Amino acid sequence: MTGNTFGTLFRVTTFGESHGPAIGGVVDGVPPRLPLAEADLQRELDRRRPGQSRHTTQRREPDRVQILSGIFEGLTTGTPIGLLIANEDARSKDYGAIKDLFRPGHADFTYLAKYGIRDYRGGGRSSARETAVRVAAGAIARMVLGDAVRIRGALVQMGPHGIDRARWDWDETARNPFWCPDAAAAEAWADHLDGVRKSASSVGGIVEVVASGVPVGLGAPVFDRLDADIAKAMVSIPAVKGVELGSGFAAAARSGLENNDAMRMKDGRPVFLSNNAGGVLGGISTGQDIVVRVAIKPTSSIATPQRTVNVDGAEVEIATTGRHDPCVAIRGVPVCEAMLACVLADHLLRQRAQCG
Amino acid sequence: MTGNTFGTLFRVTTFGESHGPAIGGVVDGVPPRLPLAEADLQRELDRRRPGQSRHTTQRREPDRVQILSGIFEGLTTGTPIGLLIANEDARSKDYGAIKDLFRPGHADFTYLAKYGIRDYRGGGRSSARETAVRVAAGAIARMVLGDAVRIRGALVQMGPHGIDRARWDWDETARNPFWCPDAAAAEAWADHLDGVRKSASSVGGIVEVVASGVPVGLGAPVFDRLDADIAKAMVSIPAVKGVELGSGFAAAARSGLENNDAMRMKDGRPVFLSNNAGGVLGGISTGQDIVVRVAIKPTSSIATPQRTVNVDGAEVEIATTGRHDPCVAIRGVPVCEAMLACVLADHLLRQRAQCG
Amino acid sequence: MTGNTFGTLFRVTTFGESHGPAIGGVVDGVPPRLPLAEADLQRELDRRRPGQSRHTTQRREPDRVQILSGIFEGLTTGTPIGLLIANEDARSKDYGAIKDLFRPGHADFTYLAKYGIRDYRGGGRSSARETAVRVAAGAIARMVLGDAVRIRGALVQMGPHGIDRARWDWDETARNPFWCPDAAAAEAWADHLDGVRKSASSVGGIVEVVASGVPVGLGAPVFDRLDADIAKAMVSIPAVKGVELGSGFAAAARSGLENNDAMRMKDGRPVFLSNNAGGVLGGISTGQDIVVRVAIKPTSSIATPQRTVNVDGAEVEIATTGRHDPCVAIRGVPVCEAMLACVLADHLLRQRAQCG
Amino acid sequence: MTGNTFGTLFRVTTFGESHGPAIGGVVDGVPPRLPLAEADLQRELDRRRPGQSRHTTQRREPDRVQILSGIFEGLTTGTPIGLLIANEDARSKDYGAIKDLFRPGHADFTYLAKYGIRDYRGGGRSSARETAVRVAAGAIARMVLGDAVRIRGALVQMGPHGIDRARWDWDETARNPFWCPDAAAAEAWADHLDGVRKSASSVGGIVEVVASGVPVGLGAPVFDRLDADIAKAMVSIPAVKGVELGSGFAAAARSGLENNDAMRMKDGRPVFLSNNAGGVLGGISTGQDIVVRVAIKPTSSIATPQRTVNVDGAEVEIATTGRHDPCVAIRGVPVCEAMLACVLADHLLRQRAQCG
Repeated sequence: MTGNTFGTLFRVTTFGESHGPAIGGVVDGVPPRLPLAEADLQRELDRRRPGQSRHTTQRREPDRVQILSGIFEGLTTGTPIGLLIANEDARSKDYGAIKDLFRPGHADFTYLAKYGIRDYRGGGRSSARETAVRVAAGAIARMVLGDAVRIRGALVQMGPHGIDRARWDWDETARNPFWCPDAAAAEAWADHLDGVRKSASSVGGIVEVVASGVPVGLGAPVFDRLDADIAKAMVSIPAVKGVELGSGFAAAARSGLENNDAMRMKDGRPVFLSNNAGGVLGGISTGQDIVVRVAIKPTSSIATPQRTVNVDGAEVEIATTGRHDPCVAIRGVPVCEAMLACVLADHLLRQRAQCG
Repeated sequence: MTGNTFGTLFRVTTFGESHGPAIGGVVDGVPPRLPLAEADLQRELDRRRPGQSRHTTQRREPDRVQILSGIFEGLTTGTPIGLLIANEDARSKDYGAIKDLFRPGHADFTYLAKYGIRDYRGGGRSSARETAVRVAAGAIARMVLGDAVRIRGALVQMGPHGIDRARWDWDETARNPFWCPDAAAAEAWADHLDGVRKSASSVGGIVEVVASGVPVGLGAPVFDRLDADIAKAMVSIPAVKGVELGSGFAAAARSGLENNDAMRMKDGRPVFLSNNAGGVLGGISTGQDIVVRVAIKPTSSIATPQRTVNVDGAEVEIATTGRHDPCVAIRGVPVCEAMLACVLADHLLRQRAQCG
Repeated sequence: MTGNTFGTLFRVTTFGESHGPAIGGVVDGVPPRLPLAEADLQRELDRRRPGQSRHTTQRREPDRVQILSGIFEGLTTGTPIGLLIANEDARSKDYGAIKDLFRPGHADFTYLAKYGIRDYRGGGRSSARETAVRVAAGAIARMVLGDAVRIRGALVQMGPHGIDRARWDWDETARNPFWCPDAAAAEAWADHLDGVRKSASSVGGIVEVVASGVPVGLGAPVFDRLDADIAKAMVSIPAVKGVELGSGFAAAARSGLENNDAMRMKDGRPVFLSNNAGGVLGGISTGQDIVVRVAIKPTSSIATPQRTVNVDGAEVEIATTGRHDPCVAIRGVPVCEAMLACVLADHLLRQRAQCG
Repeated sequence: MTGNTFGTLFRVTTFGESHGPAIGGVVDGVPPRLPLAEADLQRELDRRRPGQSRHTTQRREPDRVQILSGIFEGLTTGTPIGLLIANEDARSKDYGAIKDLFRPGHADFTYLAKYGIRDYRGGGRSSARETAVRVAAGAIARMVLGDAVRIRGALVQMGPHGIDRARWDWDETARNPFWCPDAAAAEAWADHLDGVRKSASSVGGIVEVVASGVPVGLGAPVFDRLDADIAKAMVSIPAVKGVELGSGFAAAARSGLENNDAMRMKDGRPVFLSNNAGGVLGGISTGQDIVVRVAIKPTSSIATPQRTVNVDGAEVEIATTGRHDPCVAIRGVPVCEAMLACVLADHLLRQRAQCG
C-alpha cells in the first residue's frame, strides 16, 4: 500500500537509508515453531556483503544482522520478526560534492521531483544498500519453504559476454566472485571487469534464478499469478530493467508447437518434456523448475565525466567518485534469489489458506 | 490479497469464466465528478473485440459492457463502478472432447492441481476472455489520467518478423489488423499469419506500449516502484512471458556511459538526452515516455496434434479445435494498454495522497 | 484500500446504489470444492428481505440473487464468485422532493461534502440496501466455516424495551417478526412498534450475535485481533453506533476478579467457568461462544418534521416520506450475522495459512 | 494482512515483545517535508510512560524512542520512518513461576493454542508494552494532521465511578494522574484506586477521545467507514471490550427525532444543533467533533488467587505478582488518542487521493 512492504501473507517491510544509523525491517506472517537463528540470516547476508573481492565496492560493511523479536528459544513464535543492520562504514562526506547534482541514471532527479526533498548521502533510500534487508528476509523465506525447495542464482551474462550453458555447473558459482556457473567464462569475465574498472566504466549483466522442488499449485490468478508476482519482485530490485520466465522473449518468435511443453507419464505421474513455461502455466506453478532471468543495467555511478544539470538549472559535468560496484549485477544474484524466496513463501501460505 | 484484484487506490476486481453467464468486475477508488459513459468503455472494448478480421478468433462476442453503479447523471460519484459483460457466443460443447485432457501450454493441468476442480469450458477462468473487463477498467483509468496522458500500444514483432522503427507511424496502427506501426511490415505479417493459420500453427509476438505525458513523480519505492507494478501488470496478462522497460535486456550488454541518460536544460527545465530508462528512474517516473515491451508466447491452442496426458494418466494426442487466435499478441495490444493505464491511474492517486 | 472491499483472504467487494439497475459484488478467496447453490444464498437473503411484516419497509424487493461465476457443477472452483441482485421496486420519484435537502441523521450532507456529487435517489450508495450483498456473502462464509460453526442473531432491545434473558429461546427468534428470543417481549414490542409507526417516529435497538463452535486460535494480533475485525465489521453496517464483546462496557465497572474467566479442566480439556471475554482473549478466539452486541440507532427517516438546511443554504423543515423501516435494527439482525460469518471465515483461512 | 500492520496509506507496522531486546516499528506513507524530531515522539511517549505515579506499574522504562530513518535535516523525506525503543527494565525472572500457567483474562491460553509456542516473559507479544510504538506512531500522525486537528483523551469512568460532565475541564486532565477531566472525581478516584491496589484487586474504566477540527469528508464507505476504522483501532488495543461513537449504545433507546442532529445555518455554513452522530454520518466525518468512548476491562493480572489450569492440564491457583497497573485504562488514554490520530491521518491521505 505504501511502497515499502512486499507480500501478502509472508510480508516484508523495510526501512532505512544508505547513510542513516541503520537499515532494518519487519517480517510478518512467519509460521510458528520454525528453527531460526541470526546465523541463518547472516549466512545469506555474507553472500551479498560488499568488499569480498576486487570486483565489488570497497565499502566495508560487516552487515551484521540482529533479530529483535519473533524468536523464542530458537524457534519462531508467529509474531513479527524485527531486523536491524547497523550502517558502519558510511562516508557521507564523499557525497557533499554531488548534493546539488542529478547523477545520470540515478534516482536523484526523481526523488527530488517526487518528494521535494532528498537525502543525497549515498543515494539515501534509493541506494541498493536497502537490499541487505531483503536478503535477510529471503533467508527467513527459505526456512518457510523448507529443504525441499532449493533456490539458486547465477550470473549468466556480464556485459556482452555470456556463458556456455553446456558447461553449467552450480557448484562453480560458489568458486568464482561472479556467481558464474561456467568456470571458463568466469576467467574471461575477471579480465573484462578489470578493464572496465580501469577505464572508469561499468557494465550490466543478466541474472538467472532457478527454484527447484516448488510444489505444483502456487499462484493466485488472475492478477496475482505466480509469474506476475515474481516479475514485480525482480523489477523492484534497483537497476533491474527486464524480467522473463522460461523461454521469455524468445517465445515471441516461436510457434505454438515449438513453445508448448508436451506431456507424458513418468513413474505414474504427468511430466513435461520441456520447460519453456519456466515452471508456471496460467499463473500457477507446474512443479517444474521456476526459471527466471533478470536484466540488470550497468552501474550508473561512473568516474567518466557525464553531462547533467544541477538543482539550480545549471548545465554541468559530473564524474561520480566514491566506492561503487563496476557491475552491480554480481551482488544482485543473492538479492534475486531472496526475492524469489519471498514470493514463493508468500504463495505457499496463500495456497495453504485457500486450498488447504 | 485474493488474486482477482489489482491496484491499491485505483482498484480493479474481476470475476467470470469464459463460458459462464457473464464476466464482470468492480472498479473502486475512482475520483468523483469525472464524465463517464458506457460508450467510453465500449470504444476500448471494441478495439479488443474478437472476430474483426480473419486474423483473430471467429467467436462472435459483442462484448457489450453495462455500467451498473457509480455513475449519476453522466458523472462518476466516487462509489464503486460495477461492470457486466454477458457471454453470448459461448459454445461449450466444443470443449466436451477435451474435458479430461491437459492441453499443452494451457492452465488445465495447474488449475486442476491447485483447486482439485476445473471448469474446462473454454478454459474457464484461465481464458483470456477475462481481459475484456481489464480493457473496460483501463478505459476508466484513462479518464482518471486525463487527456494529458496518452497511452498507445503497437505490435512490434510477430513471430520472427520485426518492424523497421524508422517507419514507425502511430496512425498506421489503426489501419491494419495487427496494431503494427510499420505499414510495410503489416503487409508481410498478413501473409505470414495466413500461412500460420493454414498450417494449423500459431505464433508469438512482442507488444510495445508507450505512455506520454506522464507527470514526473509517480511510483512508490522501494517495492511498489512504478516499473515493478508495470511488470506485474503485464505479466498478469495471459500468455505473457517477459517484460522490459527502456533499454531492457539490451542494457545488460552496455556500459554505464552508454546506458545512462545524460541531462541538459531546455526551455528552463531539465531534460534527458535519451530514454534508456524507459521513463522510470529509481522506480519513479521521470516525465519522459514510459516505454514497455511485452513478450507474448504463441497461442497454445493449435490444431496440430501434440503429446499430452489425460486426468486418468493415459498418454494421448490432442489437436485443439475450437475458435482461437493464431496470434494472441494482436489482441493483447489493447489489453497491455489498459493495464498500463490502470497502473498509472493508481500511482497518480497514490502520489496525490502522499505528496499532495 | 478503497472502501468497498472487506476481508483479507475471504474477501467481499460490493457495488451498487439503492436505485440503480442492480447491486452486486464479488466474493474472492473461497476454497474450492464447496457445494454452493443460489438457494443457499437466497435462504439468507429471504431472512433480510423487506416487506415481510407490517413492521418493516413496504418496498417489495424480491432480492433474487444470481451467481455469475465461481461455481461449476454445483461446487465452488476457487475462482471469484460474482453476485448480482436486481433492483426492481425502486421508486426514484419518491425522492425528487428531497434531492436538495440534507435529511437529518442521513449521509446526504457528508456524501455531498466528500464527493461533490450525490445520487440522492433512495440514499444512493449510503442506503442500507447495499447490505443485501453482505448477507449473500455471509451465506458463502457460512459454507466456508462449515456446519460446526453456528452463527445466530437476536434483537435483545427495541427502543427502551429489553428482554428477560431467563426466557431466551433461540427457536423463538424465527417465530416473531423481530428476531426476539423472548416471546413475551416480542408481543410487547409489536404493540410498541405499532405506536412508533403511527406517531411517525422510529426507534433504535440492540442486536446480539453469537457464534458457537468457533475453533480456538482465530485472530491475528496485534492489529487484526479477531475482536477488532469484528468491531470494524459491525460498525461498517449502516446505523451502527457501538459494539461490545462479552461483558463489554459493563467490564469497566468491574474488578479483575469479577471479570476474569477462571479456568478448570473438563473431560480432559481446559474450560472457562464464565465468558466475560466474549470468546476472545488477546485478540484470539478461545473456543467459547463469540458474543457480540451491536447498538443500532433509530431510523433517521421519519415523517415528523425536522429542522434542516438545503444545498443552497436555506433553513427548511423536512418530513421524510417514502417507505422506511420504523426500526432498522430488526433487519439488521441477519446483516450482523453475515458480517460475523465473513470475519470468522476470513480468520479461519488466515489461521490455516500461518499455522497450518 | 498479517496482523501487525495498521492503516492503508498512513501505515504503521510494529514488532517486539515485552521482554525482548527492543520493540519498534515502521511508519510508512508519511508525506514529505514535515518537521519531525525524536522529541515530538518522546513527548507523547512520556505521557504513556509507566512509573510516573503510584497509580501505575512501577516498571521503570525510560521508553526512549530512536528514529532510524525517514528524516533528513529535520524534515520527513517521504520514506519509511523506522522506530526503535529498547526494553531496559524487563525482569523476565519474575515470570518463571507462571510459564506453564494460563493466567485468567490473559492471552496465555490463546497464544499457545494458536501458535503452539509462546514467549511467556511478560506476556510476550500480547503485552500492552507494544502500545508504546503506537503512541510514537500517533505522534507522527498528529504531524500529518497538522495543528488544526486536535485530539484529546480523558478517563471518564474508573470502575463504578463516573464524572460530572458539568465539571469537564480539558486542562484538568494534565493535572491529575488519571487524565480525569473532573477535578473532584479525580480526588475520589485516587482514594478508590489506593483501595483497589491494597486489596490486590484491579478495576476497569472508560476512555473518551475527542478529535476537534477534523475536516468534513473523511471516511471511505461502505466498509472503511471512518467510524468502522476507529472501532477497529480501539478494539485492537489490549483490554478493550467495547467502543461507541456519539450517542452510542444510548441511541438504541431513542427515537429518530431525539437522536437525529438537526441542521441550521450559522455564519453562512450548515451547522448541526447537536452531535449524537459523534462526528460521523454514513461513515464520513461531518466536521463536528469525533467523539469516541472506549470500554477497558480491569487489569487481568491481580495478586488475588484465581482458579486456572496449567499446560499439563492440572487445576491450580494463581496469584499474579510482578509490576502491574491496577487500572490499565489510565495509561490507555494516550494510546486511544494515538490510534485515533492514526485513523484520521490515514483517512486524510485517502481523501486527498480520491477527492483531491
